[in-house]
Amino acid sequence: MTEPVRVAVDAMGGDSGPEDIVAGALEAASPALHPIVFGPKGLDTQGLELVEASEAIAMHEKPVEAVRAKTDSSLVLACRAVGDGEADAVVSAGNTGATLAAGLFHIRRLPEVDRPAIAVVLPARDGPSVLLDSGANADARPEHLLQFAQMGAIFSHEMLEVAKPEVRLLSIGEEPEKGNQLTLDAHALLAESDLNFGGNVESRHLLSHAGDVVVCDGFTGNVCLKLLEGTIKTLLEGIREEIRSSTRGKIGGLLIRPAARHLRERLDPDTYGGAYLLGLRGLAVIAHGSSSPKAIANAIRLAARGAEHHMVDRLAERLRSTVLASARP
Amino acid sequence: MTEPVRVAVDAMGGDSGPEDIVAGALEAASPALHPIVFGPKGLDTQGLELVEASEAIAMHEKPVEAVRAKTDSSLVLACRAVGDGEADAVVSAGNTGATLAAGLFHIRRLPEVDRPAIAVVLPARDGPSVLLDSGANADARPEHLLQFAQMGAIFSHEMLEVAKPEVRLLSIGEEPEKGNQLTLDAHALLAESDLNFGGNVESRHLLSHAGDVVVCDGFTGNVCLKLLEGTIKTLLEGIREEIRSSTRGKIGGLLIRPAARHLRERLDPDTYGGAYLLGLRGLAVIAHGSSSPKAIANAIRLAARGAEHHMVDRLAERLRSTVLASARP
Repeated sequence: MTEPVRVAVDAMGGDSGPEDIVAGALEAASPALHPIVFGPKGLDTQGLELVEASEAIAMHEKPVEAVRAKTDSSLVLACRAVGDGEADAVVSAGNTGATLAAGLFHIRRLPEVDRPAIAVVLPARDGPSVLLDSGANADARPEHLLQFAQMGAIFSHEMLEVAKPEVRLLSIGEEPEKGNQLTLDAHALLAESDLNFGGNVESRHLLSHAGDVVVCDGFTGNVCLKLLEGTIKTLLEGIREEIRSSTRGKIGGLLIRPAARHLRERLDPDTYGGAYLLGLRGLAVIAHGSSSPKAIANAIRLAARGAEHHMVDRLAERLRSTVLASARP
Repeated sequence: MTEPVRVAVDAMGGDSGPEDIVAGALEAASPALHPIVFGPKGLDTQGLELVEASEAIAMHEKPVEAVRAKTDSSLVLACRAVGDGEADAVVSAGNTGATLAAGLFHIRRLPEVDRPAIAVVLPARDGPSVLLDSGANADARPEHLLQFAQMGAIFSHEMLEVAKPEVRLLSIGEEPEKGNQLTLDAHALLAESDLNFGGNVESRHLLSHAGDVVVCDGFTGNVCLKLLEGTIKTLLEGIREEIRSSTRGKIGGLLIRPAARHLRERLDPDTYGGAYLLGLRGLAVIAHGSSSPKAIANAIRLAARGAEHHMVDRLAERLRSTVLASARP
């Protein structure tokens, strides 16, 4: 029998209480998946392994400072467990910046990776789409975008089971000559690479399906992610308000409720667990916003799948072979 | 009696036929507003002044090349009329890039402006919001963002009648230290300026109201604009599909139809006419996508209001005084 995958779960990150996170960990636990809960002394983990942590990092704290100061926090201890080989992956529902900082300090970069990136799986209409970088690197160079593309393609293949992921470059026109200096240069690198590169794509397609992997710098990716979230929210609120402003609308609203619920479920970011830090010596996952037990369980399962598929080794191999290829005379 | 404002209207740009554009021009015409139609020989302008043009620039043509080659096109002739002082403003329903190129060649930059910008008025829930640059400059420097902010504030004041427009800088966090190098540097310039600067704003608020004026580089602005359009479209289509997939939903859909129509009207980009090129020696307006007669009429009226309010002079004054102020020892 193979060893179970061990996932370090930060029970003190995020807005939801440790109990919800324990509930998610319990839901994900199986003979093949062993969650280790990092939480306060005395937390009822209902039989799951507990590592006690005396501190917690809150959502509003400054990432680097908090990670440096709170060495006994659940997040830092969980990341150190991955760095020390005691766990295969880490899941936190907390502060994205702090998880990035703790990952860089305690899990550390793969030597082949210049810049770890945040990958987010968009629940696009025609299939999941991996957007990266979603915010780790506000400024990036063309060669970073090429690495993001390579990491995204492996993520899409190993985690989302897309056979031959198509990579697109986010720009302001489909033509190769449309864009800013960064995308023009990145386009040339991507076109030369052995990736399945489909060229530029415009942001208007992000919610339908802009590609299996969509690559951009972290500023643009973060702007897109927040604009998507905000626009969906504002629009659905607008519809609700309009409907509620008349009796006729209210009755109509009751009748379309199942349809609306179905659409909301389809767009639910909890399905894909959250944001993935790629480029470290272990997989780190930040569960999405609400962090319901379901979201936590999905994040833990995806993290475990990444470990089972040796995603980190695959990333390292892929990037090493590219580095070697580009170093050839 | 004061002279009427003369607006040059390109009847051959865009997807709609010259007849629709003439209909829009007729709707906007008044004793104080004199549209001049630039269109093919023999076009029935129903009494409006016609300037004959033998060529047209299509949506798919390469902007700079088309403008250079087609010197007798309706767009080039209309822009030259503004450059020569025969018209006060120009409205086209066509190719944004070609209008930008024709504006730069034939209307020319204000000497105080380094980079003209495209301003788009977003139909945000809590009031119109001017987003600029929406795509003229894919790469921009911090001092360009300051000029965009100054032009946007004057536009908001003169055209949208906002008393003291609040300017926000689009970034990936509200805190001044969140962003990329461009926004960090631009934040410092904006904070020092005499503008009513409200700090950074995140893209999640663009559809509710991110500020009277929202400033960013042209790459980011264009990505946001297309993402907004695409997300609204995909989401409304998704709702329609879900509703139509059951009888119950269909009946509910009929009942909420007036509410849905009301929401669509509220979000209708035609209300504000389109994209405005700011920083030229005359105002140029690109009417939005569909270019219904209503959209054309609104674009012509807004262009005329810009001329009546001497917006170009105000821009020049404002930027000149800033240049002088920053040149002080």
